[in-house]
Amino acid sequence: MRPLRHPAEVEITLDGVLHALSDPDRREIVHRLMQSGGMNCSQACQKRPASTVSHHHRILRDAGLIVSEKRGVEVFNSVRRETIDRRFPGLLDVIFKTPSS
Amino acid sequence: MRPLRHPAEVEITLDGVLHALSDPDRREIVHRLMQSGGMNCSQACQKRPASTVSHHHRILRDAGLIVSEKRGVEVFNSVRRETIDRRFPGLLDVIFKTPSS
Repeated sequence: MRPLRHPAEVEITLDGVLHALSDPDRREIVHRLMQSGGMNCSQACQKRPASTVSHHHRILRDAGLIVSEKRGVEVFNSVRRETIDRRFPGLLDVIFKTPSS
Repeated sequence: MRPLRHPAEVEITLDGVLHALSDPDRREIVHRLMQSGGMNCSQACQKRPASTVSHHHRILRDAGLIVSEKRGVEVFNSVRRETIDRRFPGLLDVIFKTPSS
């Protein structure tokens, strides 16, 4: 597996974050990761095809919303909460308090 | 000119709003409309081709973020601030306080 690229904090843009969170499946992934403190892909893949979940994780990772770390044979994903809160204060709070319509 | 369609408050989705605001030009339009209290298209068109501005206004209108009203020969656009604040409390505040990177 190639090393996964994570944008530095200053590279994280509002464009990328809002685009990544404009999809309800990706918001659900972020919400579950925030509630659980992190999950590996096999836990996140229970409801959807692995390829779909992997695609969503890549968009979230490229946007700077999650970090993906290899742990043994699994990839463990968690939300870059402090980074996003510093970069866009209040954004995650507001988005994940609103009705997920 | 055909009547412009505006979604009802309950039809406004977080998907549509976040997607519409994931573009820096559209955020700039919303920001200028919020600061000015509203503008007609010829005022908004000063910096960009009318077709581009018109396209952005349509996406913002379809997402429920702005209302477009015919006034004489002009179309006057303004932000549906109260509607969006009721539907997604704090979202506009947070997005337009953050650095517009």
